[in-house]
Formats: sequence, C-alpha cells, structure tokens
Amino acid sequence: MGEIIKGKPVADSITEELIQEVELLSVRGITPKLAIVRVGARGDDLAYEKGALTKCKKVGIETQVVELAADITQDDFIAKIQELNNDASVNGMLIFRPLPQQLDESVIKYIISPEKDVDCFSPVNVGKMTEGDETGFPPCTPTAVMEILKFYDVDVKGKDVTVVGASMVVGKPVSILLLNEFATVTTCHIFTKDSSKMTKEADVVVVGVGVPRLVKENWVREGAVVIDVGINVDKDGNMCGDTDFDNIVDKAAMITPVPGGVGSVTTSILAKHVIKACKQQHHVNSKEIETVMN
Amino acid sequence: MGEIIKGKPVADSITEELIQEVELLSVRGITPKLAIVRVGARGDDLAYEKGALTKCKKVGIETQVVELAADITQDDFIAKIQELNNDASVNGMLIFRPLPQQLDESVIKYIISPEKDVDCFSPVNVGKMTEGDETGFPPCTPTAVMEILKFYDVDVKGKDVTVVGASMVVGKPVSILLLNEFATVTTCHIFTKDSSKMTKEADVVVVGVGVPRLVKENWVREGAVVIDVGINVDKDGNMCGDTDFDNIVDKAAMITPVPGGVGSVTTSILAKHVIKACKQQHHVNSKEIETVMN
Repeated sequence: MGEIIKGKPVADSITEELIQEVELLSVRGITPKLAIVRVGARGDDLAYEKGALTKCKKVGIETQVVELAADITQDDFIAKIQELNNDASVNGMLIFRPLPQQLDESVIKYIISPEKDVDCFSPVNVGKMTEGDETGFPPCTPTAVMEILKFYDVDVKGKDVTVVGASMVVGKPVSILLLNEFATVTTCHIFTKDSSKMTKEADVVVVGVGVPRLVKENWVREGAVVIDVGINVDKDGNMCGDTDFDNIVDKAAMITPVPGGVGSVTTSILAKHVIKACKQQHHVNSKEIETVMN
Repeated sequence: MGEIIKGKPVADSITEELIQEVELLSVRGITPKLAIVRVGARGDDLAYEKGALTKCKKVGIETQVVELAADITQDDFIAKIQELNNDASVNGMLIFRPLPQQLDESVIKYIISPEKDVDCFSPVNVGKMTEGDETGFPPCTPTAVMEILKFYDVDVKGKDVTVVGASMVVGKPVSILLLNEFATVTTCHIFTKDSSKMTKEADVVVVGVGVPRLVKENWVREGAVVIDVGINVDKDGNMCGDTDFDNIVDKAAMITPVPGGVGSVTTSILAKHVIKACKQQHHVNSKEIETVMN
C-alpha cells in the first residue's frame, strides 16, 4: 500500500515556521495584515474566507474583510482596491474570483499592486512565475502542490512529471513551477489524444481538472507519486478528487487524499505569501530575521 | 524526402500583410516607429539590427537607433528608456540583451512600457503570454516558430509536441505558446533523463538549445514535423542548427533548414509587433482598417 501523503503535516510545518516569523517581525513593531476583498457572499468564497481567517489568526496575521455589494460598479471597486494599495498597514490582498460580470477582470488585474497580490491576480506575478523570479507570488494552490512534494522529499529535478489539466488556476501554473524545478513536464488537457498514455510513464502525476475520479488505476505506473488537486462531489454526494483514490492507493508510492490533501495546504501558502509581502515591503530579509533570532 | 519548410515564404507573406497595414495607417496620418536601443556595438546586435532595419524599411516602419556608450550608468540608461516611453512618436522598443553588467535587467525590465515592449522584456508581457492574453507581445523567436507552423498548415491542437530546451529565450515561451494552441506539450532540458525518448513519439519536435546537431535521426519518428531554432557554427566552421538536418530530412514530413528557417522570420515578427503596438496606441483595430479598405 502506498503512503497517503496528507496536507495537514505540511500545513502544520509551514504554520510553525510562520508563527516564528511573525514573532520576529513583532520585535520590530511590524504586524502583517491581509485584506480579503469579497464581492457579495458566495458560499465557496465564504468557506475559503473562514479557513483563511482561522489560519491568519493562528499565525498572527491581522485580517480585514472588505465585503462589497454584489452590484458594485467598476469605478467603486477600483477605488476600493486603490485605497488598499495605498494603505501601508495592508501587506497582502486576496480578491475572490470570478468577479461578477459588471467588473472587468482584464482591467482590474492591473489595478492591484503586484507587491500586495498574494494570489497571482496581477499579470506581473504571472510573469514573475514564468521567469522563475522568486520575488513574486505564484497562485496558492499550485504552490501548495510544490510544497507537498518538497515536504515529502519528492525531488522533481529530472523526473518525468505529467500534469493533467492546463487551466490558469491549476494545470498551467503547476506545469511552469515544475519546469522551474527542472522536472521534465508533459501537460495534458481536453484536447490531448490519450492522457493515460502520458500519465502511465510518469514518475509524478499531478491532476487538476474537476472531473470526479478521471484518473484510473491503469493510468498510473507502479510506484508513481500522485498529487490530486481536484475537489468534487460525486453523484452519490461523496467528496472525491480527480483520481480513483481507492484503486490507485495500492499501486502508487504516494498519493494525496481528497479531502485532506492539497486543499488543506492552500491557506498556509496564502499566509506565507502575506508574510513574504510584509517582509518585502519592510525590506526585512530572512537573513536579518535569523540575526535577530541568534 | 520531407518538405524543407523555409522561413522566407512565411516572412514574405507577413511582410506583404504589413505593407498593406502601414498603407492603411498612413491614410490616417499614422507612421509606425521602432526605436532600437543598443548598448555598445556587439557583432550579434549589429547583425540583428541590420536585418531589423532592412525589414522595417521594406514594410514602411520608421526607425531610430539609439546607440549608448558601453559604460552607460543605470540612471542614464533608465532616463533614456523613460524618454522613449514618453515619446508618442515611438510605438515599439527593442532593447538588445544581455545588457552590460552595470545595468540591472531585473530593474530595467520594469521600466520599459509594456505597451511598447515588442520583444517581451517586461514581466507584464511574459504574464500576458502565459495567460494567453493576445494584447501582449510574446518574444519574437518563439512567435516565429508558431507562425511557421501556421503558415505550413501544421495544426498543433491535440498534437503531441516535444520541445527540447527550457530557456526563457526559446523553450519555455514556445512551450507556453504551444499549450495556448492546445498542443499536448512535453518540455525537455539538460536534466531530462532521456530527451530522445520524448521526441521519438512526438508529432512535432521544436529544438532550441544551442548544441550543434543534438537531435539525431533516431530521435525523430517517421513523418514528424521538426522545427530547429538553433543557430550554431560547428567545429568545421559551418553554420548548422540543433538537429542533424541531413539525416533527418528523409524521415521527417517537414523540417526547417538552418540557415533559412526560423531565423529568417524573426524580424518580420518584430515588425508585426511594432504595427500591432502602433494600432493599439492609436486605438485602431483591424476591423476599422478593413472598413477603410472597403
């Protein structure tokens, strides 16, 4: 039986590290702060917000929830974002997407300050990710995938990795982050002739498509590492991922569960990005923090 | 014998189209203009500049060569770029890279106006490329690869494409552009276990690594399309690409020659981007141009 690699130990480890960093920042009189910008009150947004607030509280990050009317105009929305850009007490900003139709994301993504854009809304952060510029903020979920691999000592350098899915939310950024770590990356999607052929030979398979149990046992080779980014509810009302977990678990060397896998690491990455943004804005680097520690 | 797919017909076709566009812009009193910013006088830069000037002249794009001293300070360099940003007569800017050591590219890439950055120096254009936002300017050489495939009716959608090389100059942007066109993309590089295994099954192989004749006949399957982005001089002083052209040409369905392949399309893409930038800056869209034509 393969190892079930859960998200919680990864999240706990990041959380511990962040608590220390917040303490060291507080010595300098600095408290990191996240502003969450939510338009309306969608269930998905509220659920994620709850998790993010809990995580921030635990770590010691201040939070401010900016709830805006579902029918807010573009001008008013932009004015609010600019206000948060100019508010020096706010280090990071999470804007829930998709935004309602009257708000043009292709305009708004240029408004958020790239320095505060902790979930990669700004094209500048997309560019930094592609360039491998580590001063930027890649999106939280793909970063969670990378942190899980790192935590469980899966070195992707030189490994054959197949990513199933090519969305801007998961597949494309994960492919780029893996390439930045020198994996040999194959990216599959809806137009791929035979995704199973591509996954079958891979050392590591990452799946993020939103199709319940798409990846079957015969898609995966013996001893592969499988990272499942999907969160679905199947027709019987059960939560499941994009992989047929029950049948793959015996074959894979490691597999993330759903729930309890990638999803449980995401808010830790968000918190990590807020602290990174805070440190950048206050020109505190990790070495200085270590000096304070010693 | 496979078809040798040359760059010239592609370049000629783009040039024809651009000449028409420039004529239609001139009806509105608009002349597109490219500024070439060169620090010092490196041979590579001068050769490319010569080609770019010839192409622009043919198309009807005005040019301005800004030659700067090899020891220019960062402040003076930035001031020059800002001057060009603010000069409304300049629509596109090509800054030769790498810049000399005293100039910090990681700072300067944020100075060039993304709207005038016709060869993807700005992270904003890298981000737009990754997002598939077609208002941006992906780098000229990778775009030339895509134009060659399009010109010779190689539809990459759903095709297995292997890219050898993962640099920001060729491999990574080509992989992203191919993914944007729905190819199933595998990207190989120096840490890949066996690149030949990845190329052998591909419908299309794109190589850009700078290693003379790296890709051998047995790396390529019968009937594949091979795009060679390499430009090398071998130990006998002969110009050659990254593929063993002479031995692959009989096996491949199509292959680009070196010289005379991808390299001969690049300046046409540069010119195309200048005109695109000009049209965007003057809020002229192609439909309006068609209206003027009818």
